[in-house]
Amino acid sequence: MLTVSTRVFKRLVRLKGFEKLTSIEEAKRIFFEKLQLKKLDVTEVSLENALNRVLAEDVVSEKDLPPFNRSAVDGYAVKAKDTFGASQLSPKTLKIVEDSLVGEKQAVEIWTGNPVPEGADAVVMLEHTRKKNRDTLEVLKPVAPGENVSRRGEDVRRGEVVVKAGTRLKPQHLGILAALGFTAVKVFRKPKVAVLATGNELVEPGEKPSPHQIVEVNRLIISGLCQQLGCETVDLGIARDNVDEIASKISKGIEAADVVVTTGGTSVGAKDLVPEAVNRLGAPGIVVHGIAMRPAMPTALGVVRGKPVIVLSGNPVAAMIGFEVFGKPLILKMLNTATPEAFFVKAKLTRRASSVLGRKSFLRVYVYMENGEFYASPVRLMGSGIISTMTKANGYVVIPEDRGGLEKDETVLVHMFDFIGEKGNV
Amino acid sequence: MLTVSTRVFKRLVRLKGFEKLTSIEEAKRIFFEKLQLKKLDVTEVSLENALNRVLAEDVVSEKDLPPFNRSAVDGYAVKAKDTFGASQLSPKTLKIVEDSLVGEKQAVEIWTGNPVPEGADAVVMLEHTRKKNRDTLEVLKPVAPGENVSRRGEDVRRGEVVVKAGTRLKPQHLGILAALGFTAVKVFRKPKVAVLATGNELVEPGEKPSPHQIVEVNRLIISGLCQQLGCETVDLGIARDNVDEIASKISKGIEAADVVVTTGGTSVGAKDLVPEAVNRLGAPGIVVHGIAMRPAMPTALGVVRGKPVIVLSGNPVAAMIGFEVFGKPLILKMLNTATPEAFFVKAKLTRRASSVLGRKSFLRVYVYMENGEFYASPVRLMGSGIISTMTKANGYVVIPEDRGGLEKDETVLVHMFDFIGEKGNV
Repeated sequence: MLTVSTRVFKRLVRLKGFEKLTSIEEAKRIFFEKLQLKKLDVTEVSLENALNRVLAEDVVSEKDLPPFNRSAVDGYAVKAKDTFGASQLSPKTLKIVEDSLVGEKQAVEIWTGNPVPEGADAVVMLEHTRKKNRDTLEVLKPVAPGENVSRRGEDVRRGEVVVKAGTRLKPQHLGILAALGFTAVKVFRKPKVAVLATGNELVEPGEKPSPHQIVEVNRLIISGLCQQLGCETVDLGIARDNVDEIASKISKGIEAADVVVTTGGTSVGAKDLVPEAVNRLGAPGIVVHGIAMRPAMPTALGVVRGKPVIVLSGNPVAAMIGFEVFGKPLILKMLNTATPEAFFVKAKLTRRASSVLGRKSFLRVYVYMENGEFYASPVRLMGSGIISTMTKANGYVVIPEDRGGLEKDETVLVHMFDFIGEKGNV
Repeated sequence: MLTVSTRVFKRLVRLKGFEKLTSIEEAKRIFFEKLQLKKLDVTEVSLENALNRVLAEDVVSEKDLPPFNRSAVDGYAVKAKDTFGASQLSPKTLKIVEDSLVGEKQAVEIWTGNPVPEGADAVVMLEHTRKKNRDTLEVLKPVAPGENVSRRGEDVRRGEVVVKAGTRLKPQHLGILAALGFTAVKVFRKPKVAVLATGNELVEPGEKPSPHQIVEVNRLIISGLCQQLGCETVDLGIARDNVDEIASKISKGIEAADVVVTTGGTSVGAKDLVPEAVNRLGAPGIVVHGIAMRPAMPTALGVVRGKPVIVLSGNPVAAMIGFEVFGKPLILKMLNTATPEAFFVKAKLTRRASSVLGRKSFLRVYVYMENGEFYASPVRLMGSGIISTMTKANGYVVIPEDRGGLEKDETVLVHMFDFIGEKGNV
């Protein structure tokens, strides 16, 4: 049986024009090697406009935070030794002064955040004191030296890297940068991605398709994925199945953008013209074509005038998975990000799922939490043209090449592309 | 010991003006009951502008997808029974016709996505055929009825709810909506949140603080958190510690926005004036003040002219946690979202962490993956004024009221607020 299916598989690969299928890892290696990717230009933006931008260089603090020893509570700044032995029954008595210097047996009223005055080394909390009169304080509980004091540099030390290059800036990063006196940061320019759909069968969204036609949805999906990564997008429209037209539109995209992504016309058949168009635009052209994965096998990767061209399947689901596997890492690499910017969760598979040996399979699943446990329910329809699998799923599981499937109750690592859901929403 | 600390705790609560601390759940219940929250208005946007908006009503498909039986492969449409018994050694011979009707022992060439012609009930893949001459086909492998055919309605059935109300629209949702012929969708108007900081000690970002002053960072943080949830924000500036000024700015916020969020001036001391200002603006005013949580205990919740006012601590970290616990659920409730819009992960705690009995503690952790396992490393500095704990952490663990801490190696559920990281980045 194995020899038959291997033979059929080889025929398929030959028929589709692929001498061999390339593994995802090898495809990426070749692509990035040929591409010699340049990082994006750096631009400065105000903190108000920096949310979700990617920091281009380490930010080093020019000061200590707090800049001085600061009270962490409302109370009285004191010399700790003057409170030793204090208790509810035998309080220690101190003199309340308004000085900026705390002497022996003296106390200065202080609010949270205020500098601890000279001479004091601790703060007694208000609720551990009793004011006898205008200038006499009873301390009911001892404090240790340093107690209730936020020490200079405790939060951030001068010279410390406070936010690293490659960080996608979240509100908390903006907060700490502002606290340190910064008002603007250096971030990478937004990557520009030009998106082209190809196919005689396609009509624009909103047009009514005749029986041989379908509505073009890939530009909307791919542009949305790019926007989620903080890219600007350029719409190159729909190209008919004509090498000249495709090449001309890709060329326009190369001029206008940092990356070109196409959909359709990539499996090598009568109408599969995009790789030919890419090659026509100059060396190296297509550097990988045919990936050992499912879906998205006919994905191709090219380089034109030093810029990346990602040639995705026309199948919406295959296009999404192909973009996730090749497009997203490319964009994150251009942005030099510090993490793969992904959320994962481990979940128990609710039923068995089969896959094909020799290819990485991307199983779409719906993850939900029940009684504190995570479950991943494989979404039933598995054809790569079945777009509803992507809206019914909220994540995917990668099934390795050497496994024919996954077992029920197996713990799987799910890569999330939407929020964790609730049971019964599948 | 317990009685002493309970006594101290009660003193503290009284001193801070809180008759009692309210649990988070009870605080939310009271708040939402007094608030009688109205859902936001609905507006229609084009699919191009719908990314990350929240769908206001179920979208029901008006058609089947695919709209007809469609070939899932490149090949020949046939009657399945004409292929029964076919093999490499004894192929079945069919006549290639160009008809739109497939008769007995006939085959019609078909491309992926094309309608399956009348009379045919299956498609033989190109690679399982051999073309003998212009009109003679040899089939090398049998197909079952329905094989390689995407059946009408297989992806989406007419009348089916294709995207549910409350869905935050992702690229895949836009794709399926376009495929079904929609060009626009009804979404909720963006919530408007007005943000006010209070405190005599505050200076605007970019100004140089003198020793008793600090840079105001909470508006930047809270506005960022709101923008991440798809809100528009209104900056109400900084109010001095003056009830009239605070009340006047909150009142302006109530006019301009759906929600007012304030920071600072909430623990009941000499300068804690925001709850008083809220109460002055009319009944019911503050409905909860003092939450059994840490940090963010002095959080207060109010209702003014039917609109919510969230009174957060001036401490950046306490403000963030307070917003996460009360502000985010409020906004998601206004948007009627289908999920809590959160990512969770289970991780092993790398060391023990202590907390305070009787309050929910929010432990900041850094989650990373190593050898396929998730680990959560508690971020060391724990003061709620330590803003760097929020940039060093990428998630938090809620420690329940009845536990004094968490043990090393304990499996904890982490609520992520940034991407999963890599080891050594703590």
